[in-house]
Formats: sequence, structure tokens, C-alpha cells
Amino acid sequence: MAATVRHAQREDVPAILSLIRELADYEHALECVEATEAKLLSTIAFAPSSSSSSSSSSSEASEPTSPTKPARCLVLTSPEDGAVVGIALYFYNYSTWRARPGIYLEDLYVKQSERKKGYGKRLLVELAKEVVAMRGGRLEWAVLKWNEPSIKFYESIGAQMMSEWVGMRVDGDGLTKLAGLLD
Amino acid sequence: MAATVRHAQREDVPAILSLIRELADYEHALECVEATEAKLLSTIAFAPSSSSSSSSSSSEASEPTSPTKPARCLVLTSPEDGAVVGIALYFYNYSTWRARPGIYLEDLYVKQSERKKGYGKRLLVELAKEVVAMRGGRLEWAVLKWNEPSIKFYESIGAQMMSEWVGMRVDGDGLTKLAGLLD
Repeated sequence: MAATVRHAQREDVPAILSLIRELADYEHALECVEATEAKLLSTIAFAPSSSSSSSSSSSEASEPTSPTKPARCLVLTSPEDGAVVGIALYFYNYSTWRARPGIYLEDLYVKQSERKKGYGKRLLVELAKEVVAMRGGRLEWAVLKWNEPSIKFYESIGAQMMSEWVGMRVDGDGLTKLAGLLD
Repeated sequence: MAATVRHAQREDVPAILSLIRELADYEHALECVEATEAKLLSTIAFAPSSSSSSSSSSSEASEPTSPTKPARCLVLTSPEDGAVVGIALYFYNYSTWRARPGIYLEDLYVKQSERKKGYGKRLLVELAKEVVAMRGGRLEWAVLKWNEPSIKFYESIGAQMMSEWVGMRVDGDGLTKLAGLLD
């Protein structure tokens, strides 16, 4: 029996939060996790709950995304007991030059005990399929520069490193300050 | 009379495309621009057309964003003749650890002849205001690493460089190949 990938339902939130916390703990940053079940419930666009159907939900049937609910989540469930052992949290991005939408993968995580089974690749393939289906242009994400094993893996499945670009971020007090800069 | 910043309407598309092409030409990459008026019209969520009102449109009154129409656009109009001389194309992103939405600025451009007037800062401030208004967490974008004047400017208004991260991208043939990798 194969692992299943489907769009997350509201009932998956405790398992999703548990994986988010496991990833943060692994990165020694558990104190940075502000996510709670309630916050995830209000900011992720979920697939409809349907205990009668365990098949993959199409995005058409999901809650619409919106500025305050921009995220979607794929969950990968174990073939043994159906538990959620992997997640791919993503949102829709845009390329101006191509004038096409795409997908940005914000977080990909597979439970420690379930590694080396191709689950990470499986989730990336499902996202690539969604980009193709929506006639999108790109699947993108970011990786820590020192994480060479991951970079090698990503390159092996066709990803290019965007080495000439660097991200900029304004958050926290800096954001409030910037918002009021011209008042 | 001050420059005005408002959400783009469908009527602004010719001016928006012109600025997109001017930016690409400046970067010697005009041949990379696949954007057309029709493509922009079908992938950007616009504010309602309203010749009677020239005031700033709230995002509530705009077309909803969607997976295939994820982008919004702010336009900055000249105080002299009302022409669009600056654009900020953006979409809504997500931080998992914070479980909060935010804004990713895909392209910021001010017409060559209208530089040094604070228009770039004005557009960034408007985006920061929208992030604060939506109780979002972050305003983010990317810059070419060699573009030191821009990086210095961004840091002067409170942005941090995310030097430890590098972007990964799958597009074109690589995307189709990845989508079919497990078939």
C-alpha cells in the first residue's frame, strides 16, 4: 500500500502543528514557533472535511485562498496507519515577466522516523503537478545555504539555485516603523 | 500636489506593461518578457474601475485573489499629469512559524525620469501599511546581490538581508519533468 498525498483538512491541524514544532525543535528554534491550532485554522485554506471520502481533494473543492488565508497544505499519510507524517505548506506566487502564477513552497517536512522513503520527493512532485495543471510558470522555495545535502537533492530533481538573488525582509518593529515612515 | 498611490485598475494595464518592459530593457532582458496586456488582465486582481472616484481603493473592493490570479498591483501616479510612473506588483505570502500572512513584493519599478523623488519608498510604505492592516507578519522581496545601492536603501528603511538562505526554482522543461517523475 502506498503513501497518500491529499490536501489538508481542518482535522489534520493537530498533526500539522506537531510536525511544524518537530521541525523547529530540530532547528533548535522551538521558541520561534508562534503557530497554534487556532492560528493555523484561520490562515490555511483547507479542503472540505469528508470522512466518507479519503481520496485526494482537488483544489477547486477547497476553501478559497485570500489575503488573510493565503496558505494551502498538502499532507502525506503513512501507508501503515494513515497518520500524517509529511507536510508541504505553500502559497501562490507570481512572475511578472511571464505574467503567470506559480507555487512557492514555504515549508516541506517529513517526520524523522519516515525519512529515506521518497516522501519529500513525492510532495514536490505533487506540487509540480499542481503548477502544471494551473498553467503556472514556476515552483520555488528557499533552502539554508549550508544545507548541502538538501541542495544536492533539489538539484537532482531539476531545481536551479538562484544564487544571484538575496531575500530582504521587514518585520516586527521595523514593519510598524516603515508603515509610519511618511506620516 | 502629491503623487498618488492606488490599487491598479484594468485601465492601467497598458501603462503597467510599459513599465515592466522598461525595467526589462534596462536589465538587457527585454526578450524574457512574455507578459502581454491580455495575460496581465487575466492574472492580476484589479480594483474596480471608477472614473468618478480617484481615491485609493481598499483591497476589500478589489477582485479577489485566487490561485490563477494571485497578483495585486499598486500604481503611483505623477502629480503633474496623473500618468502611472511607478508600480509595485505583489502577492500574499505566508510564514508557517508565525502562522501569519504577509506580502511578497515581486516587482518594484519607478520610471527612469521620475527617480530621486521618494516614489520607491512611498510604494514600500504603502505595502507595509497593508501588511500591518491585515495583521500580517512580514514584507519581503528579493534583490540582485550586486545591486549595492538598492540594498543600502532597503536596509536604511529597516529591511534585513536574508543572507543565509538561497532560492531554488523549477520551471520550463524541468517543471514538466518533475511533475511526471513518479508516473
